[in-house]
Amino acid sequence: MLTEKDFEITTLGPCAIDSPLRRLRDVGFIEDSSRVRLQPKIGPQYADGMELSVEEAGPRERIHFEPRWSCGAVVTCGGLSPGLNNVIRSVYSELAYNYEVPRVLGVRNGYMGLNPESGLKLVELTPAYVDHIHDMGGTVLGSSRGPQDPAVIVDALVRESIDMLFCVGGDGTQRGAAKIAAEVQRRGLDKAIVGIPKTIDNDIEFVYTSFGYYTALEKAQEVLRGAHVEARCAPNGIGLVKLMGRDAGFIAAGAALASQDANFVLIPEVPVRLDGEHGFLAALEHRLATREHALVVVAEGACQDLLNRARAAETDASGNILHEDVGLFLRDEIKRYFKAKGIAINLKYLDPSYFIRSVPANSSDRILSDQMARMAVHAGMAGKTGVMIGSIHNELVHVPITTSIAHRKRVDTASDLWTAVMRSTGQPAW
Amino acid sequence: MLTEKDFEITTLGPCAIDSPLRRLRDVGFIEDSSRVRLQPKIGPQYADGMELSVEEAGPRERIHFEPRWSCGAVVTCGGLSPGLNNVIRSVYSELAYNYEVPRVLGVRNGYMGLNPESGLKLVELTPAYVDHIHDMGGTVLGSSRGPQDPAVIVDALVRESIDMLFCVGGDGTQRGAAKIAAEVQRRGLDKAIVGIPKTIDNDIEFVYTSFGYYTALEKAQEVLRGAHVEARCAPNGIGLVKLMGRDAGFIAAGAALASQDANFVLIPEVPVRLDGEHGFLAALEHRLATREHALVVVAEGACQDLLNRARAAETDASGNILHEDVGLFLRDEIKRYFKAKGIAINLKYLDPSYFIRSVPANSSDRILSDQMARMAVHAGMAGKTGVMIGSIHNELVHVPITTSIAHRKRVDTASDLWTAVMRSTGQPAW
Amino acid sequence: MLTEKDFEITTLGPCAIDSPLRRLRDVGFIEDSSRVRLQPKIGPQYADGMELSVEEAGPRERIHFEPRWSCGAVVTCGGLSPGLNNVIRSVYSELAYNYEVPRVLGVRNGYMGLNPESGLKLVELTPAYVDHIHDMGGTVLGSSRGPQDPAVIVDALVRESIDMLFCVGGDGTQRGAAKIAAEVQRRGLDKAIVGIPKTIDNDIEFVYTSFGYYTALEKAQEVLRGAHVEARCAPNGIGLVKLMGRDAGFIAAGAALASQDANFVLIPEVPVRLDGEHGFLAALEHRLATREHALVVVAEGACQDLLNRARAAETDASGNILHEDVGLFLRDEIKRYFKAKGIAINLKYLDPSYFIRSVPANSSDRILSDQMARMAVHAGMAGKTGVMIGSIHNELVHVPITTSIAHRKRVDTASDLWTAVMRSTGQPAW
Amino acid sequence: MLTEKDFEITTLGPCAIDSPLRRLRDVGFIEDSSRVRLQPKIGPQYADGMELSVEEAGPRERIHFEPRWSCGAVVTCGGLSPGLNNVIRSVYSELAYNYEVPRVLGVRNGYMGLNPESGLKLVELTPAYVDHIHDMGGTVLGSSRGPQDPAVIVDALVRESIDMLFCVGGDGTQRGAAKIAAEVQRRGLDKAIVGIPKTIDNDIEFVYTSFGYYTALEKAQEVLRGAHVEARCAPNGIGLVKLMGRDAGFIAAGAALASQDANFVLIPEVPVRLDGEHGFLAALEHRLATREHALVVVAEGACQDLLNRARAAETDASGNILHEDVGLFLRDEIKRYFKAKGIAINLKYLDPSYFIRSVPANSSDRILSDQMARMAVHAGMAGKTGVMIGSIHNELVHVPITTSIAHRKRVDTASDLWTAVMRSTGQPAW
Repeated sequence: MLTEKDFEITTLGPCAIDSPLRRLRDVGFIEDSSRVRLQPKIGPQYADGMELSVEEAGPRERIHFEPRWSCGAVVTCGGLSPGLNNVIRSVYSELAYNYEVPRVLGVRNGYMGLNPESGLKLVELTPAYVDHIHDMGGTVLGSSRGPQDPAVIVDALVRESIDMLFCVGGDGTQRGAAKIAAEVQRRGLDKAIVGIPKTIDNDIEFVYTSFGYYTALEKAQEVLRGAHVEARCAPNGIGLVKLMGRDAGFIAAGAALASQDANFVLIPEVPVRLDGEHGFLAALEHRLATREHALVVVAEGACQDLLNRARAAETDASGNILHEDVGLFLRDEIKRYFKAKGIAINLKYLDPSYFIRSVPANSSDRILSDQMARMAVHAGMAGKTGVMIGSIHNELVHVPITTSIAHRKRVDTASDLWTAVMRSTGQPAW
Repeated sequence: MLTEKDFEITTLGPCAIDSPLRRLRDVGFIEDSSRVRLQPKIGPQYADGMELSVEEAGPRERIHFEPRWSCGAVVTCGGLSPGLNNVIRSVYSELAYNYEVPRVLGVRNGYMGLNPESGLKLVELTPAYVDHIHDMGGTVLGSSRGPQDPAVIVDALVRESIDMLFCVGGDGTQRGAAKIAAEVQRRGLDKAIVGIPKTIDNDIEFVYTSFGYYTALEKAQEVLRGAHVEARCAPNGIGLVKLMGRDAGFIAAGAALASQDANFVLIPEVPVRLDGEHGFLAALEHRLATREHALVVVAEGACQDLLNRARAAETDASGNILHEDVGLFLRDEIKRYFKAKGIAINLKYLDPSYFIRSVPANSSDRILSDQMARMAVHAGMAGKTGVMIGSIHNELVHVPITTSIAHRKRVDTASDLWTAVMRSTGQPAW
Repeated sequence: MLTEKDFEITTLGPCAIDSPLRRLRDVGFIEDSSRVRLQPKIGPQYADGMELSVEEAGPRERIHFEPRWSCGAVVTCGGLSPGLNNVIRSVYSELAYNYEVPRVLGVRNGYMGLNPESGLKLVELTPAYVDHIHDMGGTVLGSSRGPQDPAVIVDALVRESIDMLFCVGGDGTQRGAAKIAAEVQRRGLDKAIVGIPKTIDNDIEFVYTSFGYYTALEKAQEVLRGAHVEARCAPNGIGLVKLMGRDAGFIAAGAALASQDANFVLIPEVPVRLDGEHGFLAALEHRLATREHALVVVAEGACQDLLNRARAAETDASGNILHEDVGLFLRDEIKRYFKAKGIAINLKYLDPSYFIRSVPANSSDRILSDQMARMAVHAGMAGKTGVMIGSIHNELVHVPITTSIAHRKRVDTASDLWTAVMRSTGQPAW
Repeated sequence: MLTEKDFEITTLGPCAIDSPLRRLRDVGFIEDSSRVRLQPKIGPQYADGMELSVEEAGPRERIHFEPRWSCGAVVTCGGLSPGLNNVIRSVYSELAYNYEVPRVLGVRNGYMGLNPESGLKLVELTPAYVDHIHDMGGTVLGSSRGPQDPAVIVDALVRESIDMLFCVGGDGTQRGAAKIAAEVQRRGLDKAIVGIPKTIDNDIEFVYTSFGYYTALEKAQEVLRGAHVEARCAPNGIGLVKLMGRDAGFIAAGAALASQDANFVLIPEVPVRLDGEHGFLAALEHRLATREHALVVVAEGACQDLLNRARAAETDASGNILHEDVGLFLRDEIKRYFKAKGIAINLKYLDPSYFIRSVPANSSDRILSDQMARMAVHAGMAGKTGVMIGSIHNELVHVPITTSIAHRKRVDTASDLWTAVMRSTGQPAW
């Protein structure tokens, strides 16, 4: 149960310095007292948590760090998401052009780049370095997975005189950022650790839409269209598409909704029964019998219970393929089912995998990543630490990292998104 | 000053019929008592209007019209916006498949298609008719501008036994819808008039993002990239791009922010001074002197005062071209300025005009138009009338049409959007 | 060894009817005596086949069939290729609008649609039916694989009074067309069978570029870009992409050349050694050691000898996965190799499969498919039969189907294409 | 009348050095005796010029310049065309990686960059410099128009020890290259001047398709689709699109053919009559009367006689707008015509202008520009000078620059391209 305490923001110390943004026009300074309600709805059914609110992000008129003597660094961790380069570029731009911070560094290959054992050097960001990167997918700084010892990281921050570290990444990255912030605090250092949430799966709590998500939908939807075309062009054609989403089905649900052509959407949040009169396979058979083609979308994390059971059953069998992935599992289950029924089908399996996440960001993600990056810089300059930029009700906010990582966002089956998926697919219950 | 009364929704009568959606899964029924606050922020500076809220949109468990005997019709009016076909398709799907309404009609060429003098016939929508339309730009029903006599329209509704009319369009269209709703009420008829907001310029109040807007940004941004490339490849290259936005600069601001390459963004909401030490032209000269290229974005409605003055001045001059449009005006002012200064420039003018609005909807607009359409159907089936689907804080809501059209949305210069534009361009005050 | 006889075109009988195209402007009638040399090069090394030539395609001033009493039908067979709908539309347009043929039919689901046992009905093509299809991927008529009894097909042609059958498909389809033409001739019927070559793999002889090929390259190249981005963003990143091309490596070679980022391209035409000092794996290791990332492209038909050997070796082993496909095989071989060496790698495997072939045609393929379709109609109206539209030296020509199917096009390792691939990748010999 | 002499290639001197390419695999060396016939067709109507042939381009086994002591430079001039960066990158790659030439320079802003008065410095090309440029539109070196004194250029070549100059540009650029080559010869210097043809309009003789052309078609076709959508969605909708093509209508013709939706295509090569019973305006009226919408494509160089006449007529009139451009002229003529007839129309005018040429190259243009660049390097290394890379019958060849610039390519109204346009539009004669 969340309480007000969960949304208290830690600040390094007093904000006694006039923001250099004051020289600029149309700045829209925000005060710390400005907050956004967690729950904008009212009504009998929305009683809980109504009083909770989150600090609004934005430039502060008085800041903690003296820009002229400050140094910021940005690190990108984990898997790719469209917009990473945009974040790097906007962190640099806001620090260098607007706050006139003289030194902005890029960390190579994730947290690993702050570990001297990696042998990696920090990159001094310059206008030339970031000039074109916003039009490219990936991250120019490189990325990597896995944690590093917080003490080693903080040593590096001290050695390199880094005042603000901007940690761009998902759950694991933010977990690391929280530990770094704690280590900084333990040593009594004056350094701000600011998280920028990145998750192609859109599964970070207090982040309504993460950058890269809509770009991924765009490409995923293209693939769905291809699968739909394939399905329609062959007798009893089935297009089966596996999409990203290990724990949350946002990409599968969103792409299916955007496509409007999907007939079945299987996500981790909704258990699926394959067999039986009301199972998925019978529903698929019915669809073919009435419409002659079908489009099935499956998130990589769906049907894990079925996979596990199949794997367990395999131990004493032999010669059969043990599936690592639900797409291939489902492909074979479908084939097996229709073969047993003596119904000829044309199944086309598509797995775009990394393709949907390695492309440049689309317009809305370019805007979102720019804004998240600039808000993170404002937070850092104001000495806020252990804080992540969140997004609720179209407002960017400050969320304590520890609060964010304590929760995981999942597709809510009562939400507009999922009910729309159910309506547009006409998918039955199983 | 808005009051609670402004957000009261008119209902035709009792909702005594069980929704057929009850047979479906994951429906997420919404009660009329569920409301969304207009202002989710709290803090000293957000005192006003805090208590106002808007009815949440969504399916009702008990509805007004008996689906089996109902008829819905959809009409698209005004200029194109990506997503119109998606709206048509989803209105049809929700009515026909989910509510099992037997007769869904399409009105040809806007309100004109309900005027018998046009000679246009209503289209009976079918699965085959709407099958592929969501992948195409424009509106299969056609559109037109201009009002029709509400009495004539209501006569048509009566003649054709249309119970629900879904009016997709902008300011003028919603104004018309309000008049039709009033005429229906005056005659004491049992017909619901529901508005679905459509504006490529994103300038309808109580609609945070209108469908088509992000698609337009995507294409506009492509054009900005082209102009930027042109500017960079020539000595003293200037890319000048005119974008849509007669009264509101959302497209210009959004595309510039997405592009990150724009140096100047001129919108209707911010007056521009061309001449003088702190004017736009001097700033442009400074940019060329220091960076050798520049990208200028101008909304079609910007600088209207300057155009008017120029036009007035032209009356006694002769032989000169009177500009109808700000793009050409600015192009010539820039040329004149640098010619007078003896500075050679390479100006490339681009005006994508209708191109950015006639493309198919991107993923987020496909999702948004689907959801708005389905919410409109829920509202209609529940007998709500004179109501428009709005969108605040990522929630779809019911807004009385009369309240919506009494206000116009403009770019707020203190908003995150505009301050981000100011930060990313580094554009000075003039 | 090809002789003049191989390029003799069979004609049904005299061309005694004035072409209705004579009423039109800029028709560019072609005479049967107009021919295109197989070999446009001269020089000591090009002595062979210099005298051979092929009949030029194009409208004839006098034709065989009386348009007013004629009927044409189009059938699409085999796998999808971008441009199929464009072919259907242009066959229809040329027949209906230009020749004013009153009845044009579409065959459902390939040759199967001409077999009464399928229960499929022929489609009467109309302006409304073909209106939008050129903007969509796939084939509106549907497709299927596998042969049908030529006698059954010819029975259908007789029953339906089809004078001209346009067979759009690859090797197998053309083989079927040749048999149908032979059966027609055996029965002494007056029916023209005309082939339109379709192969996403670009592997039909006498067809320099088949429609759909460049569209497929465009999408394949996008996927390569994604894989390259993934490879660059991780330490020792390897992007491995499997592309279509069972017998010919045109897609892999072309996409790699277009991408300019590929480091290794494995195609069926060039045997690959994996192990050993000069093998692929050592070269890949060298690449990682010097550049830290690599992009590998493999055609589905590459390394078949290695796969067969691996499969043979598997028979007595147990529990291991038997790979059906070279992409997964290569993925595992690479992992195994580096694991044995104790080198950590980040391998990302992408298999776009059907995605690259189910999209709408790009501009050049739209043009090519339009022209091939119209040329096919001209050939059919002129009573040419057993003929396929070919394309050499940017000229469309008539090739006897039997001659075409007697040869298979493969990537010539001395060609500009492959030498350019070798130059752009810097790939060594193994 | 062309003679053999027109295709003789000038060589600087003996080729006595073994090509370093001999160390590579699959090189496909070409001998100077290998030639491509100008006319691959045979038949009574193709008698002329049948014996003429052109030297085949490609790597020579023995070359003129010693790679280890050589220096090459590349210059890009005139308007943008998709593929310029690809050419720069591939010239660099072939020189640096394959020939192992130690110094490759880039000239800034066209020929101007070789004039010391410009103050521009040459750029030393490096792997990092060219790394990403093939994914971007424009030219990283910048461009400019206008000639420079050949003597000044040659002075620069001497001063900078440039052995090979690769001139990428259109008609004017090649004219300049020919003059530079002549000046080099006059001074008896050992420097190769090699032209790489660049023309978005595709109007250079002996170049079947210039790089950038198909990319431009792709974007132009997108705009046509938008205009078509606009036209269809309004009563009596007319989409009018102006496309590039000052002297040759290849873009208008190609885009219209790709689109298949154009009803009228006006190009410089075909005179247009506006008025009268058989004029364009009457045909347009007929189209609206029967089909209710129309799509008109006009090349910028079309109707110049009409514009000139209109301009002449304007001299004594007053207050009216003198059109600089045919698009606006046609727009107003159409409006005037229908206004006079009392017919309400909805005309949407689109002028994508530079948009279609500033985008990154598509796959086929990426391949073409790569190959042209590498062929140019082979020619330069072999000491060929005053030579331009041409492309006939899908073969790359060496054409003397003076021969190329003596002719201009135009749309041949008897060609497959134009007859296909006529067939697909159904456009009448006027």
